[in-house]
Amino acid sequence: MHAVTDPHLPLAHSPVALAQALIRCPSVTPHEGGALATLAGILAEAGFTVERPVFSEPGTPDVENLYARIGEGPCLLFAGHTDVVPPGDGASWRHDPFGAEIEGGELFGRGAVDMKGGIACMLAATLAFLGQRGPDFGGAIAFLITGDEEGPAVNGTVKLLDWARARGERFAHCLLGEPTNPDALGEMIKIGRRGSLTANLTVHGVQGHVAYPHRAENPIPGLMRLAQGLLAAPLDAGTAHFDASNLEFTTMDVGNPSTNVIPAEARATFNIRFNDLWTPETLAAELERRLAAAAGNAVRYSLDVRPTNSVAFLTAPDAFVEQVSDAIAAETGRRPALSTTGGTSDARFIKDACPVIEFGLVGQTMHQVDERVAVADLDRLARIYGRVLDTYFPRSADAPYQA
Amino acid sequence: MHAVTDPHLPLAHSPVALAQALIRCPSVTPHEGGALATLAGILAEAGFTVERPVFSEPGTPDVENLYARIGEGPCLLFAGHTDVVPPGDGASWRHDPFGAEIEGGELFGRGAVDMKGGIACMLAATLAFLGQRGPDFGGAIAFLITGDEEGPAVNGTVKLLDWARARGERFAHCLLGEPTNPDALGEMIKIGRRGSLTANLTVHGVQGHVAYPHRAENPIPGLMRLAQGLLAAPLDAGTAHFDASNLEFTTMDVGNPSTNVIPAEARATFNIRFNDLWTPETLAAELERRLAAAAGNAVRYSLDVRPTNSVAFLTAPDAFVEQVSDAIAAETGRRPALSTTGGTSDARFIKDACPVIEFGLVGQTMHQVDERVAVADLDRLARIYGRVLDTYFPRSADAPYQA
Repeated sequence: MHAVTDPHLPLAHSPVALAQALIRCPSVTPHEGGALATLAGILAEAGFTVERPVFSEPGTPDVENLYARIGEGPCLLFAGHTDVVPPGDGASWRHDPFGAEIEGGELFGRGAVDMKGGIACMLAATLAFLGQRGPDFGGAIAFLITGDEEGPAVNGTVKLLDWARARGERFAHCLLGEPTNPDALGEMIKIGRRGSLTANLTVHGVQGHVAYPHRAENPIPGLMRLAQGLLAAPLDAGTAHFDASNLEFTTMDVGNPSTNVIPAEARATFNIRFNDLWTPETLAAELERRLAAAAGNAVRYSLDVRPTNSVAFLTAPDAFVEQVSDAIAAETGRRPALSTTGGTSDARFIKDACPVIEFGLVGQTMHQVDERVAVADLDRLARIYGRVLDTYFPRSADAPYQA
Repeated sequence: MHAVTDPHLPLAHSPVALAQALIRCPSVTPHEGGALATLAGILAEAGFTVERPVFSEPGTPDVENLYARIGEGPCLLFAGHTDVVPPGDGASWRHDPFGAEIEGGELFGRGAVDMKGGIACMLAATLAFLGQRGPDFGGAIAFLITGDEEGPAVNGTVKLLDWARARGERFAHCLLGEPTNPDALGEMIKIGRRGSLTANLTVHGVQGHVAYPHRAENPIPGLMRLAQGLLAAPLDAGTAHFDASNLEFTTMDVGNPSTNVIPAEARATFNIRFNDLWTPETLAAELERRLAAAAGNAVRYSLDVRPTNSVAFLTAPDAFVEQVSDAIAAETGRRPALSTTGGTSDARFIKDACPVIEFGLVGQTMHQVDERVAVADLDRLARIYGRVLDTYFPRSADAPYQA
């Protein structure tokens, strides 16, 4: 029934074979490593129009990207990245991080779950779908794949979307293949992401000798007072689809080597993951309000809120989310949670182009030594993506999917 | 009446001339710079037995010191140091920091008040006293002068006192010539010093991604909690002769450059200036008690109390303190406060050998650019020391001073 299991498909187009081919390309950001070239070759052979834009920005390395499209009509966009984080100490891996070896039903390698495995499943599902339905399936499929997601994320998805928009490309929905499942395939779809805001807080004091504290003004108790003012009350209690916003101090530094000197200044940095009750602007205003209240006239401070392109967003659950959930349930027996937890992803950029949701492999080993994926999960994820394509582009040509 | 003004004394033995001679020796710790040699020559010529022990310790530079004594009987010890802190940017000085130039009634130079000026006054007073009374004045005078007070203080007064004790040297009282007056000569005698204790506090957390705070354990709020526990209540309310003990955080460091990472560890250092209610041991126990109470089961930490040789001590006001106060009042019209404020000094070591008090010049410019002393203050301080000698060794040979 499902295309991926079609015995007529070449073995090289099985999800595991495609994942192995991609893992064997050492595409540590910002290096293309052959991964996009591999994708381009397969997509072109399947009839896609393939583009390979390279983007530049002063101060960052040039990065290669890929955009491919086939068909006419409502366009379902598969998005992802072929770049991977460095393997770290290769010697501590059970298998070569770029060897793509299989042991005990698991495929080992950097990118196995984040997210060459996900891309392999998208590709396998698409090839099987096109093999069954041909190029006139009543819509369009596009791949938007960047090589700059794990790095500065400057020459990747943002510019690729601008480039596509300038060419007149339009998308009905996007499925981003990041690893979204904490422990088992089918647990979780991401239907949005929290925003991220970072700020530097500096408290100004007056340097002096510890033996004469009345002639100095120690900024450290002042910084503790402000930090407490920021942490004292929760920012919110969460919303229908979001956890409560959360503030974490990531560093606090004075750098004073003299144990008999009261320092002149104390600095801290904190990061907030915030939900859809906030924008960066309202959040900055709340921070200023809390700091002013905590400081009173007793603490002199300055707050530097860093510009952010990471705002909270939600793709309101719709028929597409239902279709993906149904496909997941059919293959895994699990009805996925609709979540907005975790870090940021390129979905924060894509959401400006079309509704975007994320579903991929199990993230447990991502960014770690011995990153790996169950071969069975690759097969199942490919079948899930295949079900999504079948539903999104129904066989009756006059009844295409409408959101 | 007072010897320093005796017109028969050589001009080279006036306090200002002696101070100039010493300032012109560039004796930045650990360099002798000719300062001790200058002293040694003058003392030997005045009849002192002069010794120049050099002390060593692995990991620190060798340091020259001086010990000189004249007379038999109860011994009044003059103590001090000829080493000075570096001049810093010599170009920002109004006059060469080692030029000892006089302008507008002020003598400029590194060490002018801390404490070559003080030593010059001791020496001038002693030379004048001996000139009037001769070597059989019914007691003994000693000079214990180190070249390692501003540095590590390892090869200085501590070892010099051990060395003197081993030779059988005994002292009845010590007058240390550190600059003790905040603003005007005569304001303050130091009759003790607070102790100083430094400790490092580390809070252990669990590193993780800021987007998953429940999987990590941020050590920064834990450190703030412990710091508050330490600062919440005063250590004490002070005692008859001491201010309240005081705790200052001198640094707080995490050193985490990643704004999306919760760090594994946060460190702080604090210093306590403590009074005679505490020993380093009782204080360490109180710190442990406060930290354990603040931490509960919620914060994992370690405390490293550094060893200290700086304990609080008090030289109980006695007849000698009265004599010195009287001499000060006679010359300045001020009755000095008997204080234990400020930083530590070598008095913390001398107090184990004999009762020690401190009185010297005005400390305002010490360790600063344009360190300087009023020439009139040098003359007055020499006369004060001269009065002390006159009273300490009364002319009736059968009635020496008894504490």
